[in-house]
Amino acid sequence: MQKVAVILGSDSDLAVVQKALDTLKELEIPFESHIYSAHRTPDQARAFAQQAASRGFGVIIAAAGKAAHLAGSLAAQTILPVIGVPIKSSVLDGMDALLSTVQMPAGIPVATVAIDGAVNAALLSAQILALSDEGLARRLAERRRAETERVLEKDRALQERLS
Amino acid sequence: MQKVAVILGSDSDLAVVQKALDTLKELEIPFESHIYSAHRTPDQARAFAQQAASRGFGVIIAAAGKAAHLAGSLAAQTILPVIGVPIKSSVLDGMDALLSTVQMPAGIPVATVAIDGAVNAALLSAQILALSDEGLARRLAERRRAETERVLEKDRALQERLS
Amino acid sequence: MQKVAVILGSDSDLAVVQKALDTLKELEIPFESHIYSAHRTPDQARAFAQQAASRGFGVIIAAAGKAAHLAGSLAAQTILPVIGVPIKSSVLDGMDALLSTVQMPAGIPVATVAIDGAVNAALLSAQILALSDEGLARRLAERRRAETERVLEKDRALQERLS
Amino acid sequence: MQKVAVILGSDSDLAVVQKALDTLKELEIPFESHIYSAHRTPDQARAFAQQAASRGFGVIIAAAGKAAHLAGSLAAQTILPVIGVPIKSSVLDGMDALLSTVQMPAGIPVATVAIDGAVNAALLSAQILALSDEGLARRLAERRRAETERVLEKDRALQERLS
Amino acid sequence: MQKVAVILGSDSDLAVVQKALDTLKELEIPFESHIYSAHRTPDQARAFAQQAASRGFGVIIAAAGKAAHLAGSLAAQTILPVIGVPIKSSVLDGMDALLSTVQMPAGIPVATVAIDGAVNAALLSAQILALSDEGLARRLAERRRAETERVLEKDRALQERLS
Amino acid sequence: MQKVAVILGSDSDLAVVQKALDTLKELEIPFESHIYSAHRTPDQARAFAQQAASRGFGVIIAAAGKAAHLAGSLAAQTILPVIGVPIKSSVLDGMDALLSTVQMPAGIPVATVAIDGAVNAALLSAQILALSDEGLARRLAERRRAETERVLEKDRALQERLS
Amino acid sequence: MQKVAVILGSDSDLAVVQKALDTLKELEIPFESHIYSAHRTPDQARAFAQQAASRGFGVIIAAAGKAAHLAGSLAAQTILPVIGVPIKSSVLDGMDALLSTVQMPAGIPVATVAIDGAVNAALLSAQILALSDEGLARRLAERRRAETERVLEKDRALQERLS
Amino acid sequence: MQKVAVILGSDSDLAVVQKALDTLKELEIPFESHIYSAHRTPDQARAFAQQAASRGFGVIIAAAGKAAHLAGSLAAQTILPVIGVPIKSSVLDGMDALLSTVQMPAGIPVATVAIDGAVNAALLSAQILALSDEGLARRLAERRRAETERVLEKDRALQERLS
Repeated sequence: MQKVAVILGSDSDLAVVQKALDTLKELEIPFESHIYSAHRTPDQARAFAQQAASRGFGVIIAAAGKAAHLAGSLAAQTILPVIGVPIKSSVLDGMDALLSTVQMPAGIPVATVAIDGAVNAALLSAQILALSDEGLARRLAERRRAETERVLEKDRALQERLS
Repeated sequence: MQKVAVILGSDSDLAVVQKALDTLKELEIPFESHIYSAHRTPDQARAFAQQAASRGFGVIIAAAGKAAHLAGSLAAQTILPVIGVPIKSSVLDGMDALLSTVQMPAGIPVATVAIDGAVNAALLSAQILALSDEGLARRLAERRRAETERVLEKDRALQERLS
Repeated sequence: MQKVAVILGSDSDLAVVQKALDTLKELEIPFESHIYSAHRTPDQARAFAQQAASRGFGVIIAAAGKAAHLAGSLAAQTILPVIGVPIKSSVLDGMDALLSTVQMPAGIPVATVAIDGAVNAALLSAQILALSDEGLARRLAERRRAETERVLEKDRALQERLS
Repeated sequence: MQKVAVILGSDSDLAVVQKALDTLKELEIPFESHIYSAHRTPDQARAFAQQAASRGFGVIIAAAGKAAHLAGSLAAQTILPVIGVPIKSSVLDGMDALLSTVQMPAGIPVATVAIDGAVNAALLSAQILALSDEGLARRLAERRRAETERVLEKDRALQERLS
Repeated sequence: MQKVAVILGSDSDLAVVQKALDTLKELEIPFESHIYSAHRTPDQARAFAQQAASRGFGVIIAAAGKAAHLAGSLAAQTILPVIGVPIKSSVLDGMDALLSTVQMPAGIPVATVAIDGAVNAALLSAQILALSDEGLARRLAERRRAETERVLEKDRALQERLS
Repeated sequence: MQKVAVILGSDSDLAVVQKALDTLKELEIPFESHIYSAHRTPDQARAFAQQAASRGFGVIIAAAGKAAHLAGSLAAQTILPVIGVPIKSSVLDGMDALLSTVQMPAGIPVATVAIDGAVNAALLSAQILALSDEGLARRLAERRRAETERVLEKDRALQERLS
Repeated sequence: MQKVAVILGSDSDLAVVQKALDTLKELEIPFESHIYSAHRTPDQARAFAQQAASRGFGVIIAAAGKAAHLAGSLAAQTILPVIGVPIKSSVLDGMDALLSTVQMPAGIPVATVAIDGAVNAALLSAQILALSDEGLARRLAERRRAETERVLEKDRALQERLS
Repeated sequence: MQKVAVILGSDSDLAVVQKALDTLKELEIPFESHIYSAHRTPDQARAFAQQAASRGFGVIIAAAGKAAHLAGSLAAQTILPVIGVPIKSSVLDGMDALLSTVQMPAGIPVATVAIDGAVNAALLSAQILALSDEGLARRLAERRRAETERVLEKDRALQERLS
């Protein structure tokens, strides 16, 4: 299976991004994770993106806050799908990171998920890889069913509480 | 090759979405396009999403404005990757559609592109399908090079104008 | 009397929604409450909305956060009035849920109340049912008078404090 | 059948509100419409709301722009359901009217629809009145079916265009 | 001297508004303060505004949060200057109260100060009354000088810290 | 009677501000108007504010767009009431001017009216001056009555149209 | 004198940026202008920034819209001061470009000017270069005086119109 | 070397601004810091800006919150580059200070950095002064390298944690 790369703009984003790593593990998807800043280590970020396809990656997840250029700058160097996770920082409630990540110009898309949406970034990478991996597709479908069941279980608990 | 489905929430979105269709054609990606509203034809939208994988689709693009639930409601019925295009309508400059599309809860991701970003939705679907289609990967890389060349050509024109 | 259904998108919304349940009890309005997610249990949510009228419900209240599609997706399956309560989550201060709930396209209205406005959702459902229930109308009018009196009582307390 | 009152804060709102009047006519719902400003004719607005129930109204629709207090000030004088339509004016794209209408304090709900959502205000009033009027419920259900059919018709037209 | 009226929409606003009362006391301006809600006690609020001029008030300060209609609804009943203080509540960081207070339609102005700007509301009322009260004008000018001196004192403290 | 000063930050604001001048004329209030920029003519703006009280002005109206510092910088130099009119410019729909005008720090209030609210700025200055001018108070009350009558007249026209 | 580089993310930004070029010419500052996209020509943009200091540039101005990464990505490759001009595009009124340009992480500053603020970008570059160029400092001071005079001239024209 | 002036609008901004002072010390740049409010000590602020160039300053940093006029009012009195730091206060998450600082009218630029971006303000002032100070340029380049190394070190730590 192709690997997923999870790139963080700063180690302060790790608290949020850990959920993406956990989800990838749970789905048995091989991954690497790196801290590369679009602004403080632009050359490392660029080199990683340029070599990602040949190094066996299928999807890149990039998480960054504030003027979140990381996903876009990686996307500019590869035709692998790049998923952007806008991270909420201490001001503006994540709106700056959301707009900096999603409003990419025509030509270079970034697949943006919700602010702090690390779990969904992992799931989206899985859905992409599952297009050519039936085992993964089954695990994803199973995870959906379990999620549905969990909601229904909570509904049953609510019924007991109300009755 | 797997097909791309392009779903519009309303025929008024067609002016924007046409660019996605043109880009898919240019990249020789087979596609279907349908007008299904999450609210006015929920059953048709749901049936389409449920059958999309077995009908040979690999990616679904969903474009909608205002309280743009279309991408999310399709994503809830399939594990195919779903790309959301928020459409700007007459009020709020597209912010309502952006937030309604991108802020999905954990479990059901939508790969959101820029407001009115139909071209990038098509390119993102192509980048996803290119993971298992080398010809498409080549066409995408070639398109990138042409795009780069177009910018450099405009720079040369600017140099002449300024000299 | 017709019943009120109170649907939550997630059990994390229960802290806010409990006030709606309390208000319905106080007004002696029969109700059911369920946890159904528009995205994680779309089929259960849909089935509930389709059968709500025949099962004796008169109004549906739907509370959800982030890309809050719940109210809209229920409204698409019934002509019962659907009241939407946008729930504030950890980012964007509830603006995402507000716009996702209120900006419905022409054809499928959602009666939206304030962010976290669970009490008002219950009162609005009561005002609707009171159109054909004089006892409930009297209880509502009485509640208004008590509310007015409570404000005036606080004003009197302020006068004492200031004198 | 109880009547619907459609109150406009200013005659400049009539262009938007006319669609509500047309929808009420189409659904054969008796209505009155008045121009009463919460600020320039507060006494007339107040008197209207106080007498609305006894004068045979079942629902009040209030449309206003900017600091849109109209719906809230009517709601403060009646326990009839009040539907608020925020009107977009020349600045801020309707956000001021939306927040002024929807963010009501606990105790006095306003059922808010989308910015400029006059059609949905009429439909919501119809859905409320249909709780005790089977003929109206049938007309509403029929209108939904026709709306669904219209979308499907547009989809068929798109299929022809694309083939 | 004419009195200042300080009206609160809810007793939860008292924490912020207390600073206005303190400032009025400090400037020796006679005042009354009342809790009157535009929505829960509309008749008391209206009566107060209608009689304010004849009861010896010169300025009305109105503080309210969320859909803050209080200042506007008082302003509609008097030609006394009405000063609005938007109060931040638990969502939207005060933006709802700011827009609901300041965006008044032509004809009925509200003199709006900053979100939670209770001190400035008191000062503005003082500046208005000082137009015909030289003693108050002197106290205001003196307060400005003291404020300037306080800033300069802090600057001197900073110089010592830095040296 | 004390005069009103109407200061514009730029002659491009005159289109909006003209309505303030017209309203002052209509109310027979003596006024002067000047174009002084807080940034391009700071010394003239400052000198004007410092001398305004002694030159017979009672109120200063300041209209400016974008980073609208004009009202605040005048207010810093006088204890006359200063009314700020945020002007909508080509971006951000007036939000920048609104926040720059209204969010003044404690100590220096600006009485802010709606974006482009020039008429209300004039009316507010009139309401302030009317505290010590009974003739002006009568003209203001009369203008209110005429305004009320104009709305009622439009309501009557609507009744005819609908019947 | 060191040169100024004016980089545009797209030739559609030239309409706004032309004013920067005109201002640089007027101040007799040598400059070059290039169209380099952070995303479509990342390598050319990077190479330009890396060589800018040694090629005799003292300041870089970067203008871009939407997810405006251009200024930040240039700033990451040089310690020359980089001035960012957020460009308004067809949605969100320039807010996306503003936040993407200004909210840079600690370590890599971008000197951001107003949305579409091309003239000020040129003036800011001039103010920086004037620190070591007395002739330019004189031309800047002279330009300020002329600007002041122009405002005062407009004020005199207004006085004539009003008298 | 020319000095840097760091002006705070209020001593409550010192917690954020201290990081700028620390960064200037680290880079061996001489500086002064003062608390001058644009509104409470306008004359001192103005005098400081007018004399800054002749007193040996090369750059002015101005930090202020809410209606942050400080940077703009200093910039109006000098042709030295002025860097604005918008400070987040208790409401609106810093958006008011950002817009008040950055949206300056043509003619008077303010080089705006991120909300609470004190470190970057210091770095930007250093980058400006480094244009004519090779030692400072070397220290800045060295600081960049150290910053890059610090990110790579954190990446190595992450690799160990993950392996």
